[in-house]
Amino acid sequence: MKTKFLLSLIAVLIAGSASAQVKPEDAIKYRQSGYGFMAWNMGRIKTNVEGGNFNKEEVIKAATAIQAIANSGMGALYLPGTDKGKGWEETRAKPAIWTDKEKLGKIAMDFNKEANEMAKVAATGDAAAVGAQLGKLGASCKACHDDFRIKH
Amino acid sequence: MKTKFLLSLIAVLIAGSASAQVKPEDAIKYRQSGYGFMAWNMGRIKTNVEGGNFNKEEVIKAATAIQAIANSGMGALYLPGTDKGKGWEETRAKPAIWTDKEKLGKIAMDFNKEANEMAKVAATGDAAAVGAQLGKLGASCKACHDDFRIKH
Repeated sequence: MKTKFLLSLIAVLIAGSASAQVKPEDAIKYRQSGYGFMAWNMGRIKTNVEGGNFNKEEVIKAATAIQAIANSGMGALYLPGTDKGKGWEETRAKPAIWTDKEKLGKIAMDFNKEANEMAKVAATGDAAAVGAQLGKLGASCKACHDDFRIKH
Repeated sequence: MKTKFLLSLIAVLIAGSASAQVKPEDAIKYRQSGYGFMAWNMGRIKTNVEGGNFNKEEVIKAATAIQAIANSGMGALYLPGTDKGKGWEETRAKPAIWTDKEKLGKIAMDFNKEANEMAKVAATGDAAAVGAQLGKLGASCKACHDDFRIKH
């Protein structure tokens, strides 16, 4: 029994150290990368909706990338000690990320919901519906930026 | 007839200018973001395989993100004029990207194939198979780095 407990403890510690292999500056860089890549894909969808030349396949690719990144579990990149520091650039994360978990959780869930819906709408190829859903998805991004991201 | 032709021409010009809305420095930043986010997810899969604590759901999330980015059409970010310049950092793209299209195309197709296969293998939850596929996927990344990325 004691042995089993010790083995479990060792497993947890190993898992912990494996997870801790991500350095704080890398964690910041990875999350900035995720947001940066989503920004490109939001822009592509916008261009397709507004440019008068809607390309269904491109919109699906863009929506799929946003959805996969949104569902990837980026929360794990908000490690303790990453409230300050430089990844690609100085982090713009506000301290509230580590304190206002309830509000953050709601905003994150809403963002995931809208990203999943965006992928569904993209598959229909309906440009007007894609435009409407892009507005909802963009609003869910903005909600987080307003409360949890330092303005430039 | 003439009016229809002119309207088509205008549509093409608008679409062209919409596409040109991506500034060179943004295109470089977006592609660096894509590779940066894939690097995190490659690392997560590696940790799951080697850490003695395989989490199928996390591996699926990571593989799905890599797959979606691989299939997103990042080639569009290698715009003319982005062989030099700074996104998050100075681009490490070699000039051969814009000249050796045949070799680049083969490497890119191989990478897409391995990324799609990684997502399939991840879904099985077979840690050993995931480890083997990670090796193949990593090799397809390295093939591009060797020929088309400037070393640090």
